[in-house]
Amino acid sequence: MPAKYRNFRKSVPWLILFLEAVFIVVFYFSFSGDGASRSRVSYPAFQDVNHMVIFGFGFFLTFLKRYGFSSTGFNLLIIVLGVQCSVLIEDLLSFLLQREDENSLKRITNAVVSVTAVVISTGALLGKTNPVQLILMTVVEIIVFHMSRWINNTFLQVPENLSMMHVHLFGAYFGLAVSSRFSEPSPRSEKNASTPKSDLLSMLGTLFLWVFWPSFNSVLAADKSKAIYNTYFALAVSAVTAFLLSVLTTKDGKFRMTHIQSAVLAGGVTVGYAGHSIKYPWIAMILGLLASVISILGSYCLQSCLNPALKIHDSSGVHFTFGLPGVLGALAQIVFTVINNWTNSPRQGYLVMVHIGAFCLTVSVALITGFITGLILNLKLFKTIPVSKYFEDQLYWEFPHLAVGF
Amino acid sequence: MPAKYRNFRKSVPWLILFLEAVFIVVFYFSFSGDGASRSRVSYPAFQDVNHMVIFGFGFFLTFLKRYGFSSTGFNLLIIVLGVQCSVLIEDLLSFLLQREDENSLKRITNAVVSVTAVVISTGALLGKTNPVQLILMTVVEIIVFHMSRWINNTFLQVPENLSMMHVHLFGAYFGLAVSSRFSEPSPRSEKNASTPKSDLLSMLGTLFLWVFWPSFNSVLAADKSKAIYNTYFALAVSAVTAFLLSVLTTKDGKFRMTHIQSAVLAGGVTVGYAGHSIKYPWIAMILGLLASVISILGSYCLQSCLNPALKIHDSSGVHFTFGLPGVLGALAQIVFTVINNWTNSPRQGYLVMVHIGAFCLTVSVALITGFITGLILNLKLFKTIPVSKYFEDQLYWEFPHLAVGF
Amino acid sequence: MPAKYRNFRKSVPWLILFLEAVFIVVFYFSFSGDGASRSRVSYPAFQDVNHMVIFGFGFFLTFLKRYGFSSTGFNLLIIVLGVQCSVLIEDLLSFLLQREDENSLKRITNAVVSVTAVVISTGALLGKTNPVQLILMTVVEIIVFHMSRWINNTFLQVPENLSMMHVHLFGAYFGLAVSSRFSEPSPRSEKNASTPKSDLLSMLGTLFLWVFWPSFNSVLAADKSKAIYNTYFALAVSAVTAFLLSVLTTKDGKFRMTHIQSAVLAGGVTVGYAGHSIKYPWIAMILGLLASVISILGSYCLQSCLNPALKIHDSSGVHFTFGLPGVLGALAQIVFTVINNWTNSPRQGYLVMVHIGAFCLTVSVALITGFITGLILNLKLFKTIPVSKYFEDQLYWEFPHLAVGF
Repeated sequence: MPAKYRNFRKSVPWLILFLEAVFIVVFYFSFSGDGASRSRVSYPAFQDVNHMVIFGFGFFLTFLKRYGFSSTGFNLLIIVLGVQCSVLIEDLLSFLLQREDENSLKRITNAVVSVTAVVISTGALLGKTNPVQLILMTVVEIIVFHMSRWINNTFLQVPENLSMMHVHLFGAYFGLAVSSRFSEPSPRSEKNASTPKSDLLSMLGTLFLWVFWPSFNSVLAADKSKAIYNTYFALAVSAVTAFLLSVLTTKDGKFRMTHIQSAVLAGGVTVGYAGHSIKYPWIAMILGLLASVISILGSYCLQSCLNPALKIHDSSGVHFTFGLPGVLGALAQIVFTVINNWTNSPRQGYLVMVHIGAFCLTVSVALITGFITGLILNLKLFKTIPVSKYFEDQLYWEFPHLAVGF
Repeated sequence: MPAKYRNFRKSVPWLILFLEAVFIVVFYFSFSGDGASRSRVSYPAFQDVNHMVIFGFGFFLTFLKRYGFSSTGFNLLIIVLGVQCSVLIEDLLSFLLQREDENSLKRITNAVVSVTAVVISTGALLGKTNPVQLILMTVVEIIVFHMSRWINNTFLQVPENLSMMHVHLFGAYFGLAVSSRFSEPSPRSEKNASTPKSDLLSMLGTLFLWVFWPSFNSVLAADKSKAIYNTYFALAVSAVTAFLLSVLTTKDGKFRMTHIQSAVLAGGVTVGYAGHSIKYPWIAMILGLLASVISILGSYCLQSCLNPALKIHDSSGVHFTFGLPGVLGALAQIVFTVINNWTNSPRQGYLVMVHIGAFCLTVSVALITGFITGLILNLKLFKTIPVSKYFEDQLYWEFPHLAVGF
Repeated sequence: MPAKYRNFRKSVPWLILFLEAVFIVVFYFSFSGDGASRSRVSYPAFQDVNHMVIFGFGFFLTFLKRYGFSSTGFNLLIIVLGVQCSVLIEDLLSFLLQREDENSLKRITNAVVSVTAVVISTGALLGKTNPVQLILMTVVEIIVFHMSRWINNTFLQVPENLSMMHVHLFGAYFGLAVSSRFSEPSPRSEKNASTPKSDLLSMLGTLFLWVFWPSFNSVLAADKSKAIYNTYFALAVSAVTAFLLSVLTTKDGKFRMTHIQSAVLAGGVTVGYAGHSIKYPWIAMILGLLASVISILGSYCLQSCLNPALKIHDSSGVHFTFGLPGVLGALAQIVFTVINNWTNSPRQGYLVMVHIGAFCLTVSVALITGFITGLILNLKLFKTIPVSKYFEDQLYWEFPHLAVGF
């Protein structure tokens, strides 16, 4: 299909060049040097988050047998574009809202955490988009996510670090909404499968995410040490529960790798919201357990009934790994708010409304803008790839000569 | 073999559920919040150790060609169960002995370091146990290791951080003793072998362990900076020596990957005991050299004479990677004690006796309890897997459809 | 070829043993304990650099399909030998020049950074040297690099941290000069190729290098925070540009993995010199863009005309990954010096001459000594491997029984 290739060369480089030129020009006018804000991020904390996002997510998504190059390569491309875009938007917001300048490392950390939303969304679309669509989605999603956070911060007075933790929820539902506009792959597609080797590489990514999740949850938290140990215990229990439920839900009582890979992380996602305010680790442990249950039972029940009905195909199960545990976390946080402010009833009502409002706002903004983005990305203009070419590295990457397959 | 699978579903989930329920209930009553103990562990230091144990050991053990899923997956399961169990036992001991509460990060770090014993033991049993046996062994070993440490600390007045460094020794000999009760695999078994790809993944794990070993040795040490550079130099020399001896001991003068993988770490194990008190790096370097020599010559000589006689099969050579270098380290520490207290003869005699006592105690507790654990795990109740099914992922894991092998 | 093997056993172990004995003896007389120098390196910073060099470079070089064991294994061997050698030479120089003793962690960090030169050089020679040649080259290159730095520091008064950043430049041109003395592999050699799997492992190493490059550039810098964020942005832009140019330069408009792998790092190399003194990130971004352009266009143009003319075969493209971006970085630094000292014309002229002098000196020392080293290594004495045996693990490593290939 030479026509498509030629077209690919015509679009991708110029889109990237245009974006990069815009970024550099805006950076020229904007990046205002080190601010004197008191909240700082240490370099090792930033490094953990950076490592986790670039490396962990890159390899987490390599489970498709013929899509390893694209999984790791496009993940890097998306992140570096997204981080630059995110830093600029935050600078712009700071400037418009006359906020105090932040420390430069804190800015990049904020940007890397925001980009997680995009990475999660691409998980739902893995193997179905071409690079032009991916890049456009990245820019749109980053802008919309910042808008959603800005509304949360300004009108609902949700603290900065909490509104940031909506990143999983936003990423998952945005990705699902975009995905609903793409045609479904044939269920008998041979390419939409993993091999033991690719699953092992994906396990490598999963373990990275697992190990660095406490860093992710604590990097922006007020009480870092609490966020760290609560996340650790939640992750530990959800790992244990993942093994437990995997045996119970598979046909012949074996473990299923995809169960483990998604449920193991569910606890970390759930505890993201309230990690810094949970007083006792047993609460975090119960949350981790529930998160893992929701993740595996969700994948067991809904995958067979809800997704076919809604015609959503979710390549790497982001709904169960990040979406549902995120919902659980948001609910848990509301319950904690109720409990903590029990004696103070007027304020309690207000706080509960705020948290519910923030939750609904984030999810509905994600769904609506995701749906619109999906519609736009499916315009003829962007040369959607045909279903038969889904999950295929060879469309985008030159392959080593004579290699006959993965 | 449908009967076995059904049985597998009947046992594993309920055992895990029972343990996890116990953990959460005990955590409810026990975890007493942040203590005010002066000895703290920084988050990056904890993270290094956590990363090393989860990731490094997980991939260190992936060398078997059909056992990659189990190596990484069960490693994670064992560690998360073991850490929770270990935190609880230490809390219980603190409570019973009226010790000061420790900082919560220090507690988790202690737990992660203790779990290393279990991970090492599973190395000796790699591919021969089913998950029920692994989980039971984890719980038993963690309890016994804490008892052994408690006796060391209380009756022999060995300092906390030193008694913790017996973890390699304990893990290796416990594992070997358990292993002696399992039937040996057929020497011509095709599955008990590695492929170049699986060896490369195992090298990935080895390099992780190598890089993070200074963190492991220094995280609980009094003089961190000394422990770091002594460990670094010991590791460097044992890596060099590993290459040297590998060429000398193989049939046609080539390097053997398993030699490199085990001997490279031997220096770190040996220097674990005395790393914080060695004054000059050349001493650490000589220890690293001796450790590597013992590790490779041990594997060369004993594997052909001692193991067949004792009917011990040591899947991943933990005896040579952790056992013998641990013995060497304990001996070296006794020698250093003698030298440092030369002028102070009554106290010297006492200290030497204490160190010898601690060493003998640890090894004999490990051997005896390991032997008993091995006997118990081989009861009919636990459905020992038949020798023909050793080293086989497919017994425990659902495999991607149509995959014909690794 | 039994004769060759026997010879291999006769030479490698004794060479290693001799070196290690020398190191231990010199360490006995030299390593003078913790100095009281004010410039310190934190352990996490050291750990990042160590991790990056051992692990990142180890896997960065695994792209050859039959050379994975040697890439990771020999990388470890070279680094541990090189670090010991480098620590000793620096101690010796401190002693001879009566410099203040440095903190021991700083010393090891300096050594690890210096060894990067050797690792880069081996990249140019990947698959073409036997272990004896590699070890000799390591020792010679470390000594020469320290001499070159010493001349820079003493006669040209280049600051320590700047002269250290010549490491990429030195490594690349030394490697190329050595490589010019080795016979070229046949262009139709099947073994000088990658498979999708080996490329994915190499991507793993690349991502490690990418993530830790800010640590590398900041570990010795004066203004760490500036060095970190400038490097981050330079790397981000060079990653973006790599994707852009890869599509433009390949035949059918696809991405090429080797382009991505080399150009992604170019920004980090370029910004190494001036990272701590660049005032605005947009400057770093433009440098990153130029670095990536130079790297990919360089590989596109020169590989087809210059290398065949000069008869240089550069296995892993170090000229384009480290050489040319290094040249660009050195030039950029001179431009910055001119701009910053515009008002101060006499001093400006002097500083510019110094920087140009340091650049020319480093490159010419690298080329000349590299050429001589190449000549020596090709003496009959060292049993150069025949071209037909290039890129072959099996010459050096025992392979798992019955494995028929990678």
